[in-house]
Amino acid sequence: MDIETSLRPVPLRHRTETTAEFNQIPAHVFPEHTTREDDGAVSIAGVKLTDIAKQYGTAAFVLDEADFRNRCRRLATAFGGGERVHYASKAFLSKTVCKWVEDEGLSLDVASHGELQVALAAGFPANRITVHGNNKSREFLTAAVEAEVELIVVDSLQEIGTLSEVATSCGRTQDVLVRVTPGVHVDTHEFIATSHEDQKFGFSLASGAARRAALSCVDATSVTLRGLHCHVGSQVFEADGFVLAAERLLSLWAGLLQELQGEQAKALDTLDLGGGYGIAYMPDHEALDVEAVAAELLEKVAEAAYKMGVPRPVVNVEPGRAIAGPSMVTLYTVGTVKDVETSDRAVRRYVSVDGGMADNIRPALYQAEYDVRVVNRELAGELVPSRVVGSHCESGDVLVNDVPLPNDLVPGDLLAIPATGAYCYSMASRYNMMLRPPVIVVSEGQSRVMIRRETIEDALALEE
Amino acid sequence: MDIETSLRPVPLRHRTETTAEFNQIPAHVFPEHTTREDDGAVSIAGVKLTDIAKQYGTAAFVLDEADFRNRCRRLATAFGGGERVHYASKAFLSKTVCKWVEDEGLSLDVASHGELQVALAAGFPANRITVHGNNKSREFLTAAVEAEVELIVVDSLQEIGTLSEVATSCGRTQDVLVRVTPGVHVDTHEFIATSHEDQKFGFSLASGAARRAALSCVDATSVTLRGLHCHVGSQVFEADGFVLAAERLLSLWAGLLQELQGEQAKALDTLDLGGGYGIAYMPDHEALDVEAVAAELLEKVAEAAYKMGVPRPVVNVEPGRAIAGPSMVTLYTVGTVKDVETSDRAVRRYVSVDGGMADNIRPALYQAEYDVRVVNRELAGELVPSRVVGSHCESGDVLVNDVPLPNDLVPGDLLAIPATGAYCYSMASRYNMMLRPPVIVVSEGQSRVMIRRETIEDALALEE
Repeated sequence: MDIETSLRPVPLRHRTETTAEFNQIPAHVFPEHTTREDDGAVSIAGVKLTDIAKQYGTAAFVLDEADFRNRCRRLATAFGGGERVHYASKAFLSKTVCKWVEDEGLSLDVASHGELQVALAAGFPANRITVHGNNKSREFLTAAVEAEVELIVVDSLQEIGTLSEVATSCGRTQDVLVRVTPGVHVDTHEFIATSHEDQKFGFSLASGAARRAALSCVDATSVTLRGLHCHVGSQVFEADGFVLAAERLLSLWAGLLQELQGEQAKALDTLDLGGGYGIAYMPDHEALDVEAVAAELLEKVAEAAYKMGVPRPVVNVEPGRAIAGPSMVTLYTVGTVKDVETSDRAVRRYVSVDGGMADNIRPALYQAEYDVRVVNRELAGELVPSRVVGSHCESGDVLVNDVPLPNDLVPGDLLAIPATGAYCYSMASRYNMMLRPPVIVVSEGQSRVMIRRETIEDALALEE
Repeated sequence: MDIETSLRPVPLRHRTETTAEFNQIPAHVFPEHTTREDDGAVSIAGVKLTDIAKQYGTAAFVLDEADFRNRCRRLATAFGGGERVHYASKAFLSKTVCKWVEDEGLSLDVASHGELQVALAAGFPANRITVHGNNKSREFLTAAVEAEVELIVVDSLQEIGTLSEVATSCGRTQDVLVRVTPGVHVDTHEFIATSHEDQKFGFSLASGAARRAALSCVDATSVTLRGLHCHVGSQVFEADGFVLAAERLLSLWAGLLQELQGEQAKALDTLDLGGGYGIAYMPDHEALDVEAVAAELLEKVAEAAYKMGVPRPVVNVEPGRAIAGPSMVTLYTVGTVKDVETSDRAVRRYVSVDGGMADNIRPALYQAEYDVRVVNRELAGELVPSRVVGSHCESGDVLVNDVPLPNDLVPGDLLAIPATGAYCYSMASRYNMMLRPPVIVVSEGQSRVMIRRETIEDALALEE
C-alpha cells in the first residue's frame, strides 16, 4: 500500500453508514500495513490480529515497525535531514524505540530525567538529545550535562543559573535554546494570536522576558545560546500557525543578533518550532501533509530571515504523535454486550472490552475520538447505535462514545482501536489494578514482544 | 484533635485571604493528626513532613494510619456494623490497606480480577468480599467463585449465565446482588431523578430489565439472589438521593417478594446502596455528616419497608473516598518559581513541583480542586495569584489552578496537597517516565514505607 494514497481517502466520513463500509479498514487511520485478509481477519504487517490475540492475549498494543520507521524517514526527508527531526519521546518511549529512532538518523527529545535515563540505557547518542522541562531538577540537569546532551531548552531564569553552575562544575559548556511563548496557539485548523500567554512553559516574547532570558544565557558562564524554541499546539494540520510563530521568533532573533558579537552571534543558528503535527484519528480526518507543511515552513522561514537580513537558521521540529500515533492499534476482546434503553424509544448497545481508561485515558481526559473496527471477521448485521466501554469501575470509562456497530457483534469478537501509538501506553495507569497490556511489534510477517504484559506480581512487588 | 469539631470549621472560605490564614492548616481537609509545630514545620501523626522529605524524598504520599482506621470505625458504627461497610478498594488498594480494613471489621469491594488478587494475596477473608464489574471475564468469575467470595454484583444477563455455569462447575452456589439503575443521579447537593439511564452499569428499573435480571438469578442454577445494588453518584453530601434510590429499589424488592417462594424469598435480605460519600477537598467544603446521613438513610429504608409491608433489608454501603481520601497528603518540593505576565497588568506566579498529572490526574481529568499549604515553615509574604503545576511536558499539567500563595515561597519549600488518598495513587501513571512516588505510613510518631518508590529499573524491566 502506498502511504501517499493512504493519506487521501475519498470520501471522508466521520462514521460508517453501512456494514460493508464498516468492514472496510480506513487505511489512513490504521497502520500502513493493515489488510483485511480473504478469511475476513485483519492483519498488520502480515500478522493476523487473531494470531496476536491467541499468542499474547488481549488487551494488547500492536505496533507496525515499518510504519513507525517510514514516518521517521518521511519526516527526515521533508525537513532536510534526520538530525532536524527530534522524536518527542513522551509520546511513546522504550529502549527499542530509541534504537529505531537512532537507526533512522533522527534526534530525540526527552522531557524528564526518567526519559533521559531510558534513552541513555538504550545507548542513544547523547549528542542527538534535546532536553525539555519546566522544572528540571539540579540532579536532572547534572545528568544531562554529564551525558553531554546536544541541547537543553531552558525555561526559567532560575534554571539558567542552576545550569550555568552545573555546567561549570562539570567542566563543560552546554548549548541551550530558550523556550519562548510567542502568543500563537493552534487548535486543529484555526490559530489564535495573542501576546501574553498564561502557561507554565517558556518566556514571553511580548513582555521582553524572552529577550532577557536569551541575554542571560549569553552572559552565563559555561552556557552557549544556540537558538530559540516554541511550541504552538497539538493536532495541527496547516503551516500557518507555525509560520506566524517562526516569524515572531525571528524578529527576536534579529534583535539578538544586533546585540551579540562574533562567536556569540555565530553560535545562534537553531530555530526549534516544536511538534504538534496532526494525525488522522477518525475516517474523516486527514493527517497533516508533512511534505507540504515542511516545504511551506522552511520557505517562509528563509523568506522571513531574508527580509530581516539575518542568516537563515536551521529549523528543528519535534513530532511525537506524528511518528508513533498511527503505528499502533489496541486490540481488545469483546466481553459483555448489553442493550440499554436510553428513552422509551431508543436503545444503545454497550460493548465492553478487556481494557479501558487505564490503557487509554485520552477519551476521558481530552474527549478524544477514536475509530473502532472488528478485526477477527467481517460482520453482516445492521448497524446499531453503540458505545465501546472499558472494564473499569467508573461510568466515564468510555473508549468510543457513539459509533454504529453491526448488530451481529458478539462476545469473543476482537476489536481494534487504531492510532493509539501516542499518549496511550505512555499515560497508562494501573487503575482498578488493571495491569498494563504488552506492546507487540509486527514486522514482515513476524511478531515479537517489545514490552511484556504487567503481572499482579509487578504491582505487589512495590509493597514491602 | 477531636474529629467532630474538625469537621465543623467556622468560617468556611474557599481560599485563604491572609498569610496568617494560609499558615493555618484546615483541619477538616488534612489528615486528622495534622499539626503545625512550634518551629513552623507541619507534622502528621507526630512525624514532621520535613523529616519525611529528608528520609524518603519527594514527591511522596503520606498516609495517616489512625485517620484511615478511625474513618473505618466511624462508618462501621454509623451503619450498624463493619460487615455493612464495604471499603471500595478502587480508591486505594494495597495489601496493608486490606489488613487494616480486615482489622477494623469492614468488608471489601473489588471491581477487577487484579483487585481480587491483591485482596486474596493480603489474606483478606473472601467471605467479606463483594465483587463488582461491568465486564467480568469467565476467568475472573471463576477466581471469585473458587475463592468463595460473599457476593457478586451481576451486571448483565450474559454474566448471570456465565456465573451459573462457573458456579455449577465449581460445585458451589454463589450469592449475588443485581445492579440496578434506579434513575437517581446525585451531583454534590442536588439530585436528578430520571427513569432511563444511559450508562454501562446495571439493569434499568424503569424498563423492567432489573426485575427480569433478578428473576433470571432466581432461575439460574447455582446462583442465589440475595438482593439489589445501586450507586447514585460521587461526592454526595446529603441523604435524600440515597433515600430516593432506596425507595425505588424497595418497590422492585416488594414486587419480587410477591413472586418468590420460601427459601428464595428468605434469601432476599440485602440492599446495597453503593458509595459516593463526599469529603472535604477545599476549606469551604464540609464532609458528608456520616452519622446523620446513616441515621436518616436507615430510618427511611425501615419506614419504606414497613409501608410496603416487607421485612426490612440489611443495608450495605461502599465508601472508598470517604475512608482513604482524607487520610493522605501528597508532599512535593518546590522547584521553579516563575512569574508570567498574563496581561499588561496581571502577573501569575507559576510554582512547579516534582510531581504532577502522573501522580494526580484528577485536576486534569475531572477539573478537581485541591487545597495546598507550605509545610516546612510559616511564610510571611503577601499573597500573590499563583498556580501550582507539575513537571510534565504538557501545559494542562496543573495541580492547583488558582490559589493565592505568599510571595516569599521559594524553591526548596515543601508543599502538601491534602485529601489525595483516593483515586490519586490508584490512578497514577508513568507519564513522562515520572515514576510513582512511595506511600509512607505515619503513625504514633513513626514512619514506614507501605509502597516503595518506583525506579527506572522497574520501568525498564518490562522490556525484553
